[in-house]
Amino acid sequence: MRLLVLNPNTSTAMTAAIGRAAQAAASPGSEVLALQPEFGPLSIEGHFEETIAAAGVAALLGSAAVPAHDATIIACFGDPGLDAAREVSAAPVLGIAEAAFHAASMLATGFSVVTTMKRTCIMAEHLVQRYGFERHCRGVHGTDIPVLNLEDPSASTVAEIEAAAREALSRDGSGAVVLGCAGMAPLCAQLQERLGVPVIDGVAVAVRFAEALVGLGLRTSKRGDYAAPLPKRYVGWAESLSRGA
Amino acid sequence: MRLLVLNPNTSTAMTAAIGRAAQAAASPGSEVLALQPEFGPLSIEGHFEETIAAAGVAALLGSAAVPAHDATIIACFGDPGLDAAREVSAAPVLGIAEAAFHAASMLATGFSVVTTMKRTCIMAEHLVQRYGFERHCRGVHGTDIPVLNLEDPSASTVAEIEAAAREALSRDGSGAVVLGCAGMAPLCAQLQERLGVPVIDGVAVAVRFAEALVGLGLRTSKRGDYAAPLPKRYVGWAESLSRGA
Amino acid sequence: MRLLVLNPNTSTAMTAAIGRAAQAAASPGSEVLALQPEFGPLSIEGHFEETIAAAGVAALLGSAAVPAHDATIIACFGDPGLDAAREVSAAPVLGIAEAAFHAASMLATGFSVVTTMKRTCIMAEHLVQRYGFERHCRGVHGTDIPVLNLEDPSASTVAEIEAAAREALSRDGSGAVVLGCAGMAPLCAQLQERLGVPVIDGVAVAVRFAEALVGLGLRTSKRGDYAAPLPKRYVGWAESLSRGA
Amino acid sequence: MRLLVLNPNTSTAMTAAIGRAAQAAASPGSEVLALQPEFGPLSIEGHFEETIAAAGVAALLGSAAVPAHDATIIACFGDPGLDAAREVSAAPVLGIAEAAFHAASMLATGFSVVTTMKRTCIMAEHLVQRYGFERHCRGVHGTDIPVLNLEDPSASTVAEIEAAAREALSRDGSGAVVLGCAGMAPLCAQLQERLGVPVIDGVAVAVRFAEALVGLGLRTSKRGDYAAPLPKRYVGWAESLSRGA
Amino acid sequence: MRLLVLNPNTSTAMTAAIGRAAQAAASPGSEVLALQPEFGPLSIEGHFEETIAAAGVAALLGSAAVPAHDATIIACFGDPGLDAAREVSAAPVLGIAEAAFHAASMLATGFSVVTTMKRTCIMAEHLVQRYGFERHCRGVHGTDIPVLNLEDPSASTVAEIEAAAREALSRDGSGAVVLGCAGMAPLCAQLQERLGVPVIDGVAVAVRFAEALVGLGLRTSKRGDYAAPLPKRYVGWAESLSRGA
Amino acid sequence: MRLLVLNPNTSTAMTAAIGRAAQAAASPGSEVLALQPEFGPLSIEGHFEETIAAAGVAALLGSAAVPAHDATIIACFGDPGLDAAREVSAAPVLGIAEAAFHAASMLATGFSVVTTMKRTCIMAEHLVQRYGFERHCRGVHGTDIPVLNLEDPSASTVAEIEAAAREALSRDGSGAVVLGCAGMAPLCAQLQERLGVPVIDGVAVAVRFAEALVGLGLRTSKRGDYAAPLPKRYVGWAESLSRGA
Repeated sequence: MRLLVLNPNTSTAMTAAIGRAAQAAASPGSEVLALQPEFGPLSIEGHFEETIAAAGVAALLGSAAVPAHDATIIACFGDPGLDAAREVSAAPVLGIAEAAFHAASMLATGFSVVTTMKRTCIMAEHLVQRYGFERHCRGVHGTDIPVLNLEDPSASTVAEIEAAAREALSRDGSGAVVLGCAGMAPLCAQLQERLGVPVIDGVAVAVRFAEALVGLGLRTSKRGDYAAPLPKRYVGWAESLSRGA
Repeated sequence: MRLLVLNPNTSTAMTAAIGRAAQAAASPGSEVLALQPEFGPLSIEGHFEETIAAAGVAALLGSAAVPAHDATIIACFGDPGLDAAREVSAAPVLGIAEAAFHAASMLATGFSVVTTMKRTCIMAEHLVQRYGFERHCRGVHGTDIPVLNLEDPSASTVAEIEAAAREALSRDGSGAVVLGCAGMAPLCAQLQERLGVPVIDGVAVAVRFAEALVGLGLRTSKRGDYAAPLPKRYVGWAESLSRGA
Repeated sequence: MRLLVLNPNTSTAMTAAIGRAAQAAASPGSEVLALQPEFGPLSIEGHFEETIAAAGVAALLGSAAVPAHDATIIACFGDPGLDAAREVSAAPVLGIAEAAFHAASMLATGFSVVTTMKRTCIMAEHLVQRYGFERHCRGVHGTDIPVLNLEDPSASTVAEIEAAAREALSRDGSGAVVLGCAGMAPLCAQLQERLGVPVIDGVAVAVRFAEALVGLGLRTSKRGDYAAPLPKRYVGWAESLSRGA
Repeated sequence: MRLLVLNPNTSTAMTAAIGRAAQAAASPGSEVLALQPEFGPLSIEGHFEETIAAAGVAALLGSAAVPAHDATIIACFGDPGLDAAREVSAAPVLGIAEAAFHAASMLATGFSVVTTMKRTCIMAEHLVQRYGFERHCRGVHGTDIPVLNLEDPSASTVAEIEAAAREALSRDGSGAVVLGCAGMAPLCAQLQERLGVPVIDGVAVAVRFAEALVGLGLRTSKRGDYAAPLPKRYVGWAESLSRGA
Repeated sequence: MRLLVLNPNTSTAMTAAIGRAAQAAASPGSEVLALQPEFGPLSIEGHFEETIAAAGVAALLGSAAVPAHDATIIACFGDPGLDAAREVSAAPVLGIAEAAFHAASMLATGFSVVTTMKRTCIMAEHLVQRYGFERHCRGVHGTDIPVLNLEDPSASTVAEIEAAAREALSRDGSGAVVLGCAGMAPLCAQLQERLGVPVIDGVAVAVRFAEALVGLGLRTSKRGDYAAPLPKRYVGWAESLSRGA
Repeated sequence: MRLLVLNPNTSTAMTAAIGRAAQAAASPGSEVLALQPEFGPLSIEGHFEETIAAAGVAALLGSAAVPAHDATIIACFGDPGLDAAREVSAAPVLGIAEAAFHAASMLATGFSVVTTMKRTCIMAEHLVQRYGFERHCRGVHGTDIPVLNLEDPSASTVAEIEAAAREALSRDGSGAVVLGCAGMAPLCAQLQERLGVPVIDGVAVAVRFAEALVGLGLRTSKRGDYAAPLPKRYVGWAESLSRGA
């Protein structure tokens, strides 16, 4: 089975790191293909960047040249472009925030999210509402660690995240921690060991849940809201996305 | 006062029509500047198209060349790119779905939305939840009239919308109708006269509400969630959006 | 256009002050007529007073002698009598809490309310739920400043409100402040300058939003829930409200 | 124990009928004192009338001349003046809609409300939300029977209500019926027998629940939101409500 | 009237104490019969114990040998087996958490729950959601006092509960306290006197509310969701629960 | 990896069928061990039966003799005993309703549940609320097919389910169907082929999601709400569940 793991930002180092984390999390027999959009911001730390990145995800999946695949994972915690990706895909598509929230709710009655920049907390909170986890998610906590510091995290960065997680568990009365950034994936095992509670990395969970859906022959519904896009003409750089009308 | 009215799709005919409707709705002394993105789909009838269009809106507003303005209106009923636009703007930004929902809730205890394609109803429903109008919005109704048929609507198109509105008012027990597409703006007065209830066109309401905010010196908050984007490098066609880091 | 601005309490000094604030906020060409009920409490700091005041608002608008007008604003933060006023009016009616919440949600993802007596916070919280702003309103904060102290506020009163607003912004992680009392209207500009975030006075916003609705020919729906009251006989002081049956 | 049963409208015939129904429902040893305001509408079939009636309820309870009592019941399905009444009372106060919803939720997983005028359904719906019964209340159904027709209901009126109740039970999948008007109290036993499901009259339930609270020494909280009104001056007919300042 | 008061745990001392508290709270003429299951845990301080206890409640009520009764009270704050008990009963069934929440919402706009073990707070929170009191319940507070310490509480235990209640009232801004354990029933009067706010013991309230329902001839709905169980064969210790098929 | 698949009812034929379905859905290398409680009802078609069955699930998992395993699946659509099972397990535990809802929300914006007896719909609706899927689940539909008819379903039973699913998809505007009974598992592939939309069997999905969690080293949180039960004495048949105190 081939899994497309899309890093919505354009940091090739992060794309490679996410690809490695995804491959490490995948079952034997699954091949991970890590890709990034042809355009967009080097990291995503706000709505503006996310909006450009979402188009990057959509354009990549809507392109005629997208490699054959069995499922897609959108590996940024804001799940940018998720609805568009599902519309243009017959294969299942999972966002890593979505997958992490689902998994956390199976392991604890309440969880805390620990993420990077405080200014991105609102994006996680909006997803929590959208997906229906208002009662499970007891807090979203920003650390103000820049995303790109996670490419090669120092010991002090790890210690900062651990401290924020401890504080969150205690203040929220939570039983599990969700890592709020794809860049934190490589730290997951280490943090789980130190904290003694389930620590959930959305990349890993999304990979395994995608395998689960594919393994059962389940695909994105093409009835109704996620039906394939209608024939349409596009202009500008997006011209190649035109669908014969 | 100068109002930027952005048509998120790339139909120049619709941009012009929306611009005329917005100018007609504006107060004396307000100048409407109707613009459209440099790239994107000719019309928006699904999530995929909306995602590309949202990037078009963001790129336009984030560009160094965006004309001076006092407020921005995003003139597509899905409010594509609203959060990104607010982040990159100091001036107020209004979506037409948002403005229409707010206005309708001031005039009736419950309203019905009448829109174009059935497949876009879900997008309106998600906005209803996001903005908190679950209790005011009693139904979202698709007519399956293609957006571009509204560029020069025939009598039968108008009759179809009227019939759908009557049916919606009756089934939902509503007191007002919200038009779920910027392309319906020119039909608003005619429908209101026929239906005998408030008929709300988001373009007109957004123009007037934007004037209201500007007139009072109210601007998008730059504290917290809508603070200006951080310095960032972009690649591909988006390179020009880079902000010195 | 003529706007009726109703002060629901019976302090003539406050009625005059609200009238001045409303006129200052109005567009050129709008005439503000500030009125108060013929009966009721001198200030509104609890449910009991609000209930009497709501009847005052209703009786004033339901009276045969109500002056001709294009819209009505109910200028007390509890929006007393709003539904009754809409039922008895064809013109639009806005409450200042309602208007302020709407405006704040257009400028920030979350706002804080700073009001007078702690005991009135519950009334603002109930309105937040009723109007659907549970996710936008992040806190309602009482200062225990008596309403009538706002008639001629000392420097220390202003400083107290400023301090409460700073504390609220920080604790709630909000991007805007809503002033929770019509009596605070004259302090709005000063507070906005000091705090550096949008500070929203419901009186001013309600005036401008009412102008917006009137300008577009939008009126209170008379279909269904806000249809004119049925013929009915009243007794006691309310006898003059009788409608021929 | 003495129970004040307030009919918020000014129909003396209905006050007497409600008083009889309340006395019939009361335990041995409870004395029912049925009262009505000194002013207000003959019946309540909309927001305007309800707002005047709420002031009638408040003025009656806030008056120095209110008879000694152990609890108060507000016997109109909109619970007009409930918060004001609690603020001004140390004894418990119950609304009949509130009491009926509570009781119904103890007897069935879902209930339907059958009420008089369709235009009053919205008032019941707002109470459902306010009290938190959105998931228990599966429908509010208007019959367009005028309230005063219930003073001496004909056989056909009873048949109409029965038919509406059957239809509601079936369409809503409900297990119980709540009668949405104090005037329906005398029909309760008859309807319960015919329908074979619990039929809940708020007057009777409120009487018994009030007895329950009084019997246990429970009184309205005077800490915080329902603390006694502050000293205040009133003008006009309300002058007698002034509290020494 | 005969009230069955079921203590879902198997502490005979606690069953006796709850029975005494219930009889003390009952009206003259009501006879309380306190029972406990034939099997199950000595106290309930978690989901596992509650699940076994719920079956104990169900088995007791579903047994052919259950004594004749007019209503049933489930006297453990998690309301274990409530739906099952209603299904198998024609008489009304009340849980003590349910009854306490209802009563508290009639006396204050917001209440706080003070309970025993912190680990059981989640069970109270789930009930709050299930019954619709999310907006009334402002906090659930654990004291980590073991349930069985309440059988014969020391002065320091009472002081601990009082302190927790004071802290809860202040932090939550609440007007009433709900005691979150049947074992706290004997302390209710004393705590109410000390705290000066309504203190609600679910056992007492459930007894009185049950009397209210019985007195009005209201019984559990047998239409739909609570219809009597279908004929069914059981095996193992539950064989005696078989219903002829 | 060894998966415990618990059939909460005591039909050995159904336990075997569910075991076969689970094994068929499992990945190579996973061993399914299908078990049933030692006591309880032959099928679960109401709250009473579910409550006894939940204790059966808990007792089985809490027994010293429970076989070694890596995860547990509770294979009845009401997820009986889920919280108890998690409390007593370190391994992950999934309910099939829970798993099915999660999967459906990843494949469509809205889904419909098609289940057996109408009287069990309320149990699915309560789970929808508990898990947070109110916005995704657009309807729960009963067919009044008895559970045990699914042991060896006739062609007409399959046709009935198919018809109900078509009707549900159309009325609800849904994009996917969730099968609301473990006994429907063997029909899943056939129904998906006929309906042309994702048809989700909770048994299969729970198996695969459990594998996913186990594969990533994720286990039930033992911090807080799901911490292992405290030492406790049990009496009656449950005596063997006692934990040394």
